[in-house]
Amino acid sequence: MRIHVVKIGSGLINDIKLLNTSLNFFCMIDGYKILIHGGGEQVDSILNMMNIQKRMIKGRRITDKKTLNVVVMTYAGMINKNIISLLQYNNCNAVGLCGADGNCIKSHIRKKNPIDYGYVGDIIKKNDVNTTFIKLLLKNHITPVLCSITHDGKGNLLNTNADSIASNISVSLSNDNCDVDLHFCFDKKGVLKNIKDPKSYFSKINFSLFQDMKKNHIISNGMIPKLENGFFALKNGISKVSIGLPNDLIDSNEKTMLCM
Amino acid sequence: MRIHVVKIGSGLINDIKLLNTSLNFFCMIDGYKILIHGGGEQVDSILNMMNIQKRMIKGRRITDKKTLNVVVMTYAGMINKNIISLLQYNNCNAVGLCGADGNCIKSHIRKKNPIDYGYVGDIIKKNDVNTTFIKLLLKNHITPVLCSITHDGKGNLLNTNADSIASNISVSLSNDNCDVDLHFCFDKKGVLKNIKDPKSYFSKINFSLFQDMKKNHIISNGMIPKLENGFFALKNGISKVSIGLPNDLIDSNEKTMLCM
Repeated sequence: MRIHVVKIGSGLINDIKLLNTSLNFFCMIDGYKILIHGGGEQVDSILNMMNIQKRMIKGRRITDKKTLNVVVMTYAGMINKNIISLLQYNNCNAVGLCGADGNCIKSHIRKKNPIDYGYVGDIIKKNDVNTTFIKLLLKNHITPVLCSITHDGKGNLLNTNADSIASNISVSLSNDNCDVDLHFCFDKKGVLKNIKDPKSYFSKINFSLFQDMKKNHIISNGMIPKLENGFFALKNGISKVSIGLPNDLIDSNEKTMLCM
Repeated sequence: MRIHVVKIGSGLINDIKLLNTSLNFFCMIDGYKILIHGGGEQVDSILNMMNIQKRMIKGRRITDKKTLNVVVMTYAGMINKNIISLLQYNNCNAVGLCGADGNCIKSHIRKKNPIDYGYVGDIIKKNDVNTTFIKLLLKNHITPVLCSITHDGKGNLLNTNADSIASNISVSLSNDNCDVDLHFCFDKKGVLKNIKDPKSYFSKINFSLFQDMKKNHIISNGMIPKLENGFFALKNGISKVSIGLPNDLIDSNEKTMLCM
């Protein structure tokens, strides 16, 4: 079973035209596919409307109970269901899920030391991803669309990084005899050498180059977890990991490929 | 295939203790089951937090674009996903759905004359409910939990009455060779003869009594659509339609039964 796992970034979701284009390209993928999304910018604007203060440390959101409610409403409600209705309109039969649905992704609340991130969960264990359920949907020609909310199995929803969901779901499906391609889509052609030049993307980044880039602060804070998740997938059986525009998702070399 | 369709009202959702009790009773139902919820009171409080004015006509919400966003966030996001995580904790493997998910419930935007309700959809056609998808989940021991959002198939989400979803899904499953029991659960023992006396419930209401009650203004505005949906189900093949507390869902006579 060959599966394309596509994660779309917040920048592609915030603008309805970009979202429509991204979904059109996603729909054009033949065969089995899974879409994963976050939507941090949308959460920021809802927090603002509700007069709840946004708190971030090292580019990650502190998720107290009130913020969790907003995160769940925005990711699993507003963004996810709008995506599903647009996919249905495009004749792609999709189902929107958070990790609690069908128990598809469990996570573990992050340790409160050294930083208490609140209701934030990490996917740690091998069986945290319920591939049986995901494959049941795929085999019935239903496309899963996962938002970046998971659950701990004890009745709590947890805020979880969407890149991490994408890489973990890819690895788990690969361990369950699937051949997975993982694509991180955002609003740039790839990982840029020069942030001011949108055409200056790396065609390839290997692990040692990535280590150098981190050491020399060549890449931005937001890009580091994406690449870490990409290399995690690569090290755990995923043969193709790419970063780029939705337009270049399939059948294009104009993107950044990760390699060992 | 015997299926219990259970709709829980806003009053049971608003209080976390009542919600937990309701879900515990729901989990105790043996065999196939479907849960349906709205959550109007929660929508009101989110609208209030976001400084969006609530507008109702004849007990029904005027749903402009901003209100639709809140309705989707609240029903399909906050309420639905919290219910799913609690059901998973209770070992009930559930999946939360809006009508766009798996194209499970289509609806048709309500005519703008005489009242323009905005993004409100009604289930009208026989094949608006996708019973194939619902049955796929049930057969795989996954409990569908539907919120009161549907879609028009053209990329629009629509606000839809939860009682109407419950009765329509019951009728469609019944037409697809299922034996369905329909339960409307709320925070009273049944339809009350005297609104001030919580024990004064009707054991039975037949259609002619219902017509009299409407004519003589004995029942409240909120109860009329519930009963209309109940009688619609009864007239279309559902043999058991009950209204009462979650505690009396199964194996209890302390509730109101509808009969022809």
